Amino acid sequence: MYSPAIKKLIDLFSKFPTVGPRTASRFVFYLLKLPKEEIDSLISSIAELKSNVKICKLCFNPFQGESELCEICQDPRRDKTLFCVIEKETDLTSLEKTKKYQGFYFILGGTISTLKKTDIEKLRIKELEERIKNSPEIQEIILATNPTTEGEATALYLERLLKPFGKKITRLGRGLPMGAELEYADEETLSSAIKGRR
Amino acid sequence: MYSPAIKKLIDLFSKFPTVGPRTASRFVFYLLKLPKEEIDSLISSIAELKSNVKICKLCFNPFQGESELCEICQDPRRDKTLFCVIEKETDLTSLEKTKKYQGFYFILGGTISTLKKTDIEKLRIKELEERIKNSPEIQEIILATNPTTEGEATALYLERLLKPFGKKITRLGRGLPMGAELEYADEETLSSAIKGRR
Amino acid sequence: MYSPAIKKLIDLFSKFPTVGPRTASRFVFYLLKLPKEEIDSLISSIAELKSNVKICKLCFNPFQGESELCEICQDPRRDKTLFCVIEKETDLTSLEKTKKYQGFYFILGGTISTLKKTDIEKLRIKELEERIKNSPEIQEIILATNPTTEGEATALYLERLLKPFGKKITRLGRGLPMGAELEYADEETLSSAIKGRR
Amino acid sequence: MYSPAIKKLIDLFSKFPTVGPRTASRFVFYLLKLPKEEIDSLISSIAELKSNVKICKLCFNPFQGESELCEICQDPRRDKTLFCVIEKETDLTSLEKTKKYQGFYFILGGTISTLKKTDIEKLRIKELEERIKNSPEIQEIILATNPTTEGEATALYLERLLKPFGKKITRLGRGLPMGAELEYADEETLSSAIKGRR
Repeated sequence: MYSPAIKKLIDLFSKFPTVGPRTASRFVFYLLKLPKEEIDSLISSIAELKSNVKICKLCFNPFQGESELCEICQDPRRDKTLFCVIEKETDLTSLEKTKKYQGFYFILGGTISTLKKTDIEKLRIKELEERIKNSPEIQEIILATNPTTEGEATALYLERLLKPFGKKITRLGRGLPMGAELEYADEETLSSAIKGRR
Repeated sequence: MYSPAIKKLIDLFSKFPTVGPRTASRFVFYLLKLPKEEIDSLISSIAELKSNVKICKLCFNPFQGESELCEICQDPRRDKTLFCVIEKETDLTSLEKTKKYQGFYFILGGTISTLKKTDIEKLRIKELEERIKNSPEIQEIILATNPTTEGEATALYLERLLKPFGKKITRLGRGLPMGAELEYADEETLSSAIKGRR
Repeated sequence: MYSPAIKKLIDLFSKFPTVGPRTASRFVFYLLKLPKEEIDSLISSIAELKSNVKICKLCFNPFQGESELCEICQDPRRDKTLFCVIEKETDLTSLEKTKKYQGFYFILGGTISTLKKTDIEKLRIKELEERIKNSPEIQEIILATNPTTEGEATALYLERLLKPFGKKITRLGRGLPMGAELEYADEETLSSAIKGRR
Repeated sequence: MYSPAIKKLIDLFSKFPTVGPRTASRFVFYLLKLPKEEIDSLISSIAELKSNVKICKLCFNPFQGESELCEICQDPRRDKTLFCVIEKETDLTSLEKTKKYQGFYFILGGTISTLKKTDIEKLRIKELEERIKNSPEIQEIILATNPTTEGEATALYLERLLKPFGKKITRLGRGLPMGAELEYADEETLSSAIKGRR
């Protein structure tokens, strides 16, 4: 029903995370109404992304700058003994916003749901082992994957893999979130809340 | 927390319909991982949109082609006596998908919630009057705005405006949608369903 | 975990429509806190329900009074030519609230999902045929079952069954409900809305 | 629209927790269809509730039996050093289901949102103080109110009130619940999860 140029762009937007064909077509109609300057600004921003943004050699977070390392990895005030493994870039943002964590990060690049070799190879497993081997100052590795089935499986896999390094390995605390009610909490969360009382 | 190039693109994506800053940042991280060819394909598709896609002189639907008119407006098999006024492009797609409407369209470009002059001027009111004036073959004008408060207000405004043309003016049928239950239907919908029984 | 008297009442409340064990237990704890007078009032109200409330011989709606017929079926001002078949008691309430229907009712007592004999026997099919046979004044039978899969199957079954009576048979109007948006409407609803435009 | 006996019962059911007039009317129509034996069984169960169920003198949980104390408060195998204050009866059920808590309970009977005297007097504050005064064996008081605004306010109030008793006072552990994602967790929950890592 749509013209080829519209259809192609709908297809490309449909691959964006959380976007289905209906939202993708709204994006295209939105762009069709934008003044030329704003279209140009969007295009140049997307183009600059690839050319200007680097991936940090240590934590794999995207950043901009002359250095090979992102701001966090360069920051001498951060706690070198703490090392936090996370699934993806937005998790780093979430943890930084709390201002409660002062250590370093490592972006794993995903989770595994099975122990299939092809699944594991998509993650930065080798880079993670390398990083820990070269960082004797690390005392605690926080496996901050999500407490979902996949996140748990990934943490379990990493725990076995990293045990030989002899560091303390922890996970984010489980318990009742803000606004929860005991009556509707699942048994596992409530069990964690009892064990983790303070 | 984000680098300037990332931040700028998050801002631009945040202006897309239905997109908030969180989704916008997921879009950027998605783009950062895309191979260069796919980024280039996205950029050229956006660029081509403006250069290749025209807006139909009659119905204001975007299209591609040599002609000045979109496929629907050019189609001699469609019913010239029916004329359907809709709020936006996606409504045309929705109506076409039903294959139950064989007339022509007119995209109004929005709705009005008040009768403020500035609100009304955003819509294609003049173009609509012009179109109807120049189309003596039209026998029925379907005001297919949404049955929402704003859509209703817009239809009411259009009804008064178009009355002098002496055409039959209709609205889409109100009633119970598929899967509805009488018990949970609002009184107005149920009243329409009683009146519209067939 | 609960005492037998509590457990038994939780079981009984769990059979109430829309009530699960968790809500049922909240009901019991609520009753435990009620003053004795209010418990007595609840008990006597439940007891009186069976003794004071009759089922109307014509429409099968529950009512109270000396007569054999409910208020609606006794009302000489209602339109004797209209006859509306509904699934359940609350649908009557919904239709009455609109004040747009002035005919008579018949509560079928449910829907059928299959044409199994045991399913059909749960409904008041014989009573319905009897009623229509004895009511030559009826001109239109409105099959006001829900526009759900089961409601549709039931209406289809009734349509075939009642055809021989030679009355006009209608269904509630289908279309867009209040507050709907064309963009999110299913194709069947939108098709009905186009056909039913007025 | 409803007969007096139906209307009265709808009113009484509407006072049940989580029940509105629509659900209440469904309850009444459900009862109208129940066979007499089941109505009688419901009535006798409600009547027996008040006569057979006692409230435990120690924890205020409803129970049945010869003793003055409920099964938990009588159980010599439970840990006398742990004492858990909860808002309501169903919270006890939730905690017992985890099988991770072996101490005793105290049902407060609600929460306070303000420090108004009338609000505080609705709770079993005096009974709580009395209980702790008479229980030198208690070593830890767990304030297991919900991590909601009201639950927090209540815990804060109790913490100040119970401090003079010189016992360890704890709260249920805060953190990420099962199935949560870092990306969507609120900052306070995520902060708790970082602090509570283990």
